[in-house]
Amino acid sequence: MAREGEPLEFAHLDLDREARCGFPEVVLCQGKTPEQAAAIAERLAQAHGRFLATRATPEHFAVVRGRVPDATYHEIARVIRLDRAPAPPRPGYVAVVCAGTGDLPVAEEAAVTLEAMGSAVRRIYDVGVAGLHRLLGQVGAIRQAAVVVVVAGMEGALASVVGGLVDRPVVAVPTSVGYGASLGGLAALLAMLNSCAPGVTVVNIDNGFGAGYAAATIHRAIWEGRERSGGA
Amino acid sequence: MAREGEPLEFAHLDLDREARCGFPEVVLCQGKTPEQAAAIAERLAQAHGRFLATRATPEHFAVVRGRVPDATYHEIARVIRLDRAPAPPRPGYVAVVCAGTGDLPVAEEAAVTLEAMGSAVRRIYDVGVAGLHRLLGQVGAIRQAAVVVVVAGMEGALASVVGGLVDRPVVAVPTSVGYGASLGGLAALLAMLNSCAPGVTVVNIDNGFGAGYAAATIHRAIWEGRERSGGA
Amino acid sequence: MAREGEPLEFAHLDLDREARCGFPEVVLCQGKTPEQAAAIAERLAQAHGRFLATRATPEHFAVVRGRVPDATYHEIARVIRLDRAPAPPRPGYVAVVCAGTGDLPVAEEAAVTLEAMGSAVRRIYDVGVAGLHRLLGQVGAIRQAAVVVVVAGMEGALASVVGGLVDRPVVAVPTSVGYGASLGGLAALLAMLNSCAPGVTVVNIDNGFGAGYAAATIHRAIWEGRERSGGA
Amino acid sequence: MAREGEPLEFAHLDLDREARCGFPEVVLCQGKTPEQAAAIAERLAQAHGRFLATRATPEHFAVVRGRVPDATYHEIARVIRLDRAPAPPRPGYVAVVCAGTGDLPVAEEAAVTLEAMGSAVRRIYDVGVAGLHRLLGQVGAIRQAAVVVVVAGMEGALASVVGGLVDRPVVAVPTSVGYGASLGGLAALLAMLNSCAPGVTVVNIDNGFGAGYAAATIHRAIWEGRERSGGA
Amino acid sequence: MAREGEPLEFAHLDLDREARCGFPEVVLCQGKTPEQAAAIAERLAQAHGRFLATRATPEHFAVVRGRVPDATYHEIARVIRLDRAPAPPRPGYVAVVCAGTGDLPVAEEAAVTLEAMGSAVRRIYDVGVAGLHRLLGQVGAIRQAAVVVVVAGMEGALASVVGGLVDRPVVAVPTSVGYGASLGGLAALLAMLNSCAPGVTVVNIDNGFGAGYAAATIHRAIWEGRERSGGA
Amino acid sequence: MAREGEPLEFAHLDLDREARCGFPEVVLCQGKTPEQAAAIAERLAQAHGRFLATRATPEHFAVVRGRVPDATYHEIARVIRLDRAPAPPRPGYVAVVCAGTGDLPVAEEAAVTLEAMGSAVRRIYDVGVAGLHRLLGQVGAIRQAAVVVVVAGMEGALASVVGGLVDRPVVAVPTSVGYGASLGGLAALLAMLNSCAPGVTVVNIDNGFGAGYAAATIHRAIWEGRERSGGA
Amino acid sequence: MAREGEPLEFAHLDLDREARCGFPEVVLCQGKTPEQAAAIAERLAQAHGRFLATRATPEHFAVVRGRVPDATYHEIARVIRLDRAPAPPRPGYVAVVCAGTGDLPVAEEAAVTLEAMGSAVRRIYDVGVAGLHRLLGQVGAIRQAAVVVVVAGMEGALASVVGGLVDRPVVAVPTSVGYGASLGGLAALLAMLNSCAPGVTVVNIDNGFGAGYAAATIHRAIWEGRERSGGA
Amino acid sequence: MAREGEPLEFAHLDLDREARCGFPEVVLCQGKTPEQAAAIAERLAQAHGRFLATRATPEHFAVVRGRVPDATYHEIARVIRLDRAPAPPRPGYVAVVCAGTGDLPVAEEAAVTLEAMGSAVRRIYDVGVAGLHRLLGQVGAIRQAAVVVVVAGMEGALASVVGGLVDRPVVAVPTSVGYGASLGGLAALLAMLNSCAPGVTVVNIDNGFGAGYAAATIHRAIWEGRERSGGA
Repeated sequence: MAREGEPLEFAHLDLDREARCGFPEVVLCQGKTPEQAAAIAERLAQAHGRFLATRATPEHFAVVRGRVPDATYHEIARVIRLDRAPAPPRPGYVAVVCAGTGDLPVAEEAAVTLEAMGSAVRRIYDVGVAGLHRLLGQVGAIRQAAVVVVVAGMEGALASVVGGLVDRPVVAVPTSVGYGASLGGLAALLAMLNSCAPGVTVVNIDNGFGAGYAAATIHRAIWEGRERSGGA
Repeated sequence: MAREGEPLEFAHLDLDREARCGFPEVVLCQGKTPEQAAAIAERLAQAHGRFLATRATPEHFAVVRGRVPDATYHEIARVIRLDRAPAPPRPGYVAVVCAGTGDLPVAEEAAVTLEAMGSAVRRIYDVGVAGLHRLLGQVGAIRQAAVVVVVAGMEGALASVVGGLVDRPVVAVPTSVGYGASLGGLAALLAMLNSCAPGVTVVNIDNGFGAGYAAATIHRAIWEGRERSGGA
Repeated sequence: MAREGEPLEFAHLDLDREARCGFPEVVLCQGKTPEQAAAIAERLAQAHGRFLATRATPEHFAVVRGRVPDATYHEIARVIRLDRAPAPPRPGYVAVVCAGTGDLPVAEEAAVTLEAMGSAVRRIYDVGVAGLHRLLGQVGAIRQAAVVVVVAGMEGALASVVGGLVDRPVVAVPTSVGYGASLGGLAALLAMLNSCAPGVTVVNIDNGFGAGYAAATIHRAIWEGRERSGGA
Repeated sequence: MAREGEPLEFAHLDLDREARCGFPEVVLCQGKTPEQAAAIAERLAQAHGRFLATRATPEHFAVVRGRVPDATYHEIARVIRLDRAPAPPRPGYVAVVCAGTGDLPVAEEAAVTLEAMGSAVRRIYDVGVAGLHRLLGQVGAIRQAAVVVVVAGMEGALASVVGGLVDRPVVAVPTSVGYGASLGGLAALLAMLNSCAPGVTVVNIDNGFGAGYAAATIHRAIWEGRERSGGA
Repeated sequence: MAREGEPLEFAHLDLDREARCGFPEVVLCQGKTPEQAAAIAERLAQAHGRFLATRATPEHFAVVRGRVPDATYHEIARVIRLDRAPAPPRPGYVAVVCAGTGDLPVAEEAAVTLEAMGSAVRRIYDVGVAGLHRLLGQVGAIRQAAVVVVVAGMEGALASVVGGLVDRPVVAVPTSVGYGASLGGLAALLAMLNSCAPGVTVVNIDNGFGAGYAAATIHRAIWEGRERSGGA
Repeated sequence: MAREGEPLEFAHLDLDREARCGFPEVVLCQGKTPEQAAAIAERLAQAHGRFLATRATPEHFAVVRGRVPDATYHEIARVIRLDRAPAPPRPGYVAVVCAGTGDLPVAEEAAVTLEAMGSAVRRIYDVGVAGLHRLLGQVGAIRQAAVVVVVAGMEGALASVVGGLVDRPVVAVPTSVGYGASLGGLAALLAMLNSCAPGVTVVNIDNGFGAGYAAATIHRAIWEGRERSGGA
Repeated sequence: MAREGEPLEFAHLDLDREARCGFPEVVLCQGKTPEQAAAIAERLAQAHGRFLATRATPEHFAVVRGRVPDATYHEIARVIRLDRAPAPPRPGYVAVVCAGTGDLPVAEEAAVTLEAMGSAVRRIYDVGVAGLHRLLGQVGAIRQAAVVVVVAGMEGALASVVGGLVDRPVVAVPTSVGYGASLGGLAALLAMLNSCAPGVTVVNIDNGFGAGYAAATIHRAIWEGRERSGGA
Repeated sequence: MAREGEPLEFAHLDLDREARCGFPEVVLCQGKTPEQAAAIAERLAQAHGRFLATRATPEHFAVVRGRVPDATYHEIARVIRLDRAPAPPRPGYVAVVCAGTGDLPVAEEAAVTLEAMGSAVRRIYDVGVAGLHRLLGQVGAIRQAAVVVVVAGMEGALASVVGGLVDRPVVAVPTSVGYGASLGGLAALLAMLNSCAPGVTVVNIDNGFGAGYAAATIHRAIWEGRERSGGA
């Protein structure tokens, strides 16, 4: 077994990341064998008592569970998570808003990441702009959120509409839902980058984790708010 | 001067188009010298008593007016038009809806094309989705239209929102308004092609003429409606 | 079982769509599990007595049929359909014209969508422009249609040729038929967007459903024609 | 002169935006004539006593100043600004970090936007990763910021390096600085979207305004922090 | 002045090309100063008594004429040509068929290249597929050609239609005529590469010279035909 | 069984093509079921006594052979062929030159197409430019060909080198051999379209059939040469 | 068995390459059957006593080992290698630096290629820029290398950071590690081509072999250094 | 005037670069005003007694010369250079090989960079592969070089041909020479990245400076060779 402070044979863990960035290194399982993922997860469990592993297949989870039996698997989100000493979530919540059923895996990846990082989540799903009344019925809940994550594929219009309705930070996630000229999510990505609603920021296609991470960072900063920014 | 039925030196006019397609050939001035455009316009004026010339600069108009003094120029729309015996517009109207001030030239190109083809137009401008209340205040007027043309650049979300609100045919025109990742209008084009609102059809970037032509064709078909489709 | 007016766990149905847009929400099976598709289909069957589900595999149909036994499956079109109280089709027909055998699934998706929405369809298949006489032999039938849907892959030239022959609204559908520089249908899409025949409008690659929906909307508008646009 | 609550001839101002989103509508001068820009600016000055106009040329400013004499012009940032009753900036600051001299106009657009929205700015310029010591010498100042905006063209690597060093929200702006395979900023945009540092969010190429707006929104939320998210 | 067999300071002429490939090196003026172009032209005039210089501006011609007074300039084709001992054209002709007026410069570049290489040309212009009768009226002349060059921008459909009508070699030239989604001629290029008419070959966008060169090579091969291929 | 002059249920054969274009319609098996391909093949066998079916899998061949027992299968070329009354090949030959082993299927598709259309073929394989001596050793054989087909993937440089060595018509076929930035053959396609050797014409990626068809058309024209072009 | 100097049936080996370029031809197994790969490998083993075969699957190796029993397989690198008379590695080493675990196959392909060509390798893995201290801890080892190979996917920033820290030749390899807007490695490729650190050169996506080959060529040149370049 | 160790107002010079990377920071004039460029150049002249400024217009040079009178301007290369104490060039030379006259500015940028960094240059220009004998006549001079820089636009084939002829490190520079499907140099870039000649490395389009810098770095390493790599 690898010792603290030494690299695994194939990986060089960034155990300093929690101190530096506020959360331990996260494992992207895609492109790693289940054995590689499990070895890294075990190391992180030892060092931090918690970890997050994304894009995990059931095969990844089977091997991880063999080494870290108290890890749990979020199937739709494709996330393996361990948190041996979870802190109580900070006040307020992050709204995760998604356009359609096909966007659920990405929305859930964002939601589970947020929860792992200590934010409560309010899920507002299947409110695509083709049926605007569904979204308008949820505007109150969206406006009360500390941060808003918007997840949409196809033409990604939801980000602009939500962005125009709130004064909260909005992080948009394009998804690869669609076909043909959706170009694997590029259409939604470009749309979100060109949003006519100012202040919408964007992450990579299908990157629910990245959006959740960014939103949790903002939410944490809001909560730590006055002291820190006041003292700078 | 060229005679009826013979080609100009550089062009081979499709004088049969009015009978075949319901409207005479239209001149795309872009890529033609003012002299070429004027020669074609003069021929069409002789043959049909009317013409439409798009993407016309003031230079094009100056030369055209020298040959066809009763032609008029729509500056914002960049259209030269002649109609010596205009028919009264058919009942009902086409709504031309646009997102922002920068989309005006394209929206006006659509509107003037519609008017030249016999459709009344209702202009509903600067109702982009970032300020949704502006659009929602116009839903009644949009729903009463016979056909709806939606013009938007940047992320083009307006097409999806309008498409989800009406049961009318919707023709969407992406514009090149934007910069960077708008890729000259490709972002809006892709968004409109991937609209989550079913039944939205799309024309080329900045092709206000094409959208106006398509909408006028639909409007004419609606008006001629019962007889023709009934008898088929 | 979900009750009217309440969301399913994973979906938030737009039951108001029929009133607003003239046709109930349509299920895109791609990206949904058979169970998700079936639950939505069952809800729509209860609420409207009819539904349309596109991009359905035989696996989707197997589960849907378990919940909605009178649903039918159009195998080539990959469409599941239910219509417990079909209205008689409106007068006139929509011509669905396609270039080659490979385009059949998309053409059929358009045709079945049209039939589900109350339009009679005339199928004119395998009339690609490389053998122009095949198309020219069908010009009469195309010109008599209320609306024309043109389906073509590869270079998509059929849309321009048909567009130049008729005075009817033309909706073009590029398909992903081809290889190499067809770029998954982008070549045909770009060609159709740049059609030299004015008034051709375009939908997404392989989006037979969208074209059928748009054409049915136009056809319905034509039929309802005079009253509505006359009264506006 | 247009009256409150009525649209200009060519624009339909969103005067409600300040209440809804926390800041008045911002004028994008690009694509507008100086006269159009000035008319909108005058309206906003009347309604809100302040405005921000981006991508403004000296020609735009000349006409705006004729109507709103107390407006000021930030030449490098290409921004016209009016703020008749500026509030004291909120505690803390936003760091605007840029890679090279060519990125200055975009960085300044972000900085001026931030200042207009009430955030103090700390400018940390010309610290591209090819000379890493320049950046490492500024890590302290970056870590103490409430929010970090990173501006870089070419390969955009600065966003990843900064993102890995801080626990603050990071908004990245790709610029069009570069040539050839920079593809007008697409290379930097793609790089930032694929950042290996989690939580970096991205705006459109050269969109300094958007990054400033997003960062100011986050900064304001941090400051308003505890009350609001606590009470949600 | 440079001597036979020695390079100019900036160019290394391929004086062997006529023997090896059947025609002297051709000068692409684009990217060369008028002085560079003229120096090369003068060298070729000395070595071969003829030359062809494409993409030549009037400025190029002014300087070339100063050094080679008997050179002539084809303005629309943008070609400078010298042929001190022209051979009689070989029997038969090459048809150059183009879709619209905007394609003329490219079509003429092909035609002048053909004439310079000894082929008679039959120009069949402005016969785009949106008015199919114009093309069908010329089918006889096209079928009698030895080789056919088809020049078209926008959607480039003309190549497929012509390709399906003849048993002659067809060389297609996409042009940059169009806007928006024509992507500077890429739409026409992709369409022609995906032509459903077998045997159509394609050259670069706007490369009238290349198409003329290829067609002249084929025409020469046909004429030299029986002897050479018979003897192989 | 379908009768002469009537369409199959799913296809509308172009039986006139042999008269019009010199060779019967060719079946593209890709995108067709074995049954569809076999039904078309049987029809063509009845009408013409010969056919060519490309992109055929062994599954296609198994069903075709059931209906047309004397058809043969070229495995590397993926071509099914029938020719009940083959004509003797015309004098001379077409050289098919390819760069690497991976290009063989495309080169063979070209070669078999040529043979089916009556041209003798000389195969010159694996002579990529990275080992130029291999190519230079074959220059004589290439120069004696009536037409040259060049097949290459990766950077496609072989087309330019061959094009600069011969005075024969050259048809270039890019292949999808490569990875990463070869972009599925686009790199080779673009390279060939930009060949610095004038007169190289290009077909779609992996389109060995198209290149063979074009080369056979040219070869046939050369052979029929003097009479036809002389009499025009 | 094929004889020296004669082509295999399907391949034309470049046995002269070792003399000309310093290393025998290398077999790219991708796109070749195991039998083709093995036949070529056997030929190279006979002619040179060594070979390198890249992108080899276990299936390739199984057949190769049947013909060349002393060949070895590097599983992660996907390389088959034979070296019957290995020379001692030249002094100094090449550093192969990679960003993450997912880049290992490409990094190992580079490393094994280097070793096969006579260079010692120092592997410095998993030092991506999101945890800069990991890289900074290895700067000494990187600076002492004769040549540096940098392997990174996602945003590829590692190349710029390393390039700015050393005065050694740096060869960068983008990998296809990533998803969505990584576009199969294009994002990293573009980033590396736009590196703000001067002198970084780049090879194709995932082309560990090419980078290893280039680095070994440079390393060999350095070692042979003074004599050769001194005598030129 | 800025003092040593302090940033200019707009730039933060990397005065440590010479020690770290072997050559002082280089000024990219593009995107900088003449005044900015001159201020930086003056600083570098003071600190190092030499500098290199690329992409410099005559306007840049006019202002630079006002501040650094002994700077010189290479017009074709668009480079401003100062070297108050030039070292004698190291033994051996770098060959700069280019395909055509249009590539001269990029080739000269590489050559002047090499000379500024202490390498002798042998210019071998206008040897594109369409006239292979021109290149073959120079193979000796290319093979004797220490390093080879290959500059080519259009299809970029020269890199592969040269790469296959030598055992020296080869750095390839694609240029934007071409039109249409050259896509501003992307065609040549992709071709070079996919070179079938192993070991060719590539820099950005038109990046003559980068290629010269890389080649000079390799040349210097070769010269310093034995000692350093021996001692590692």
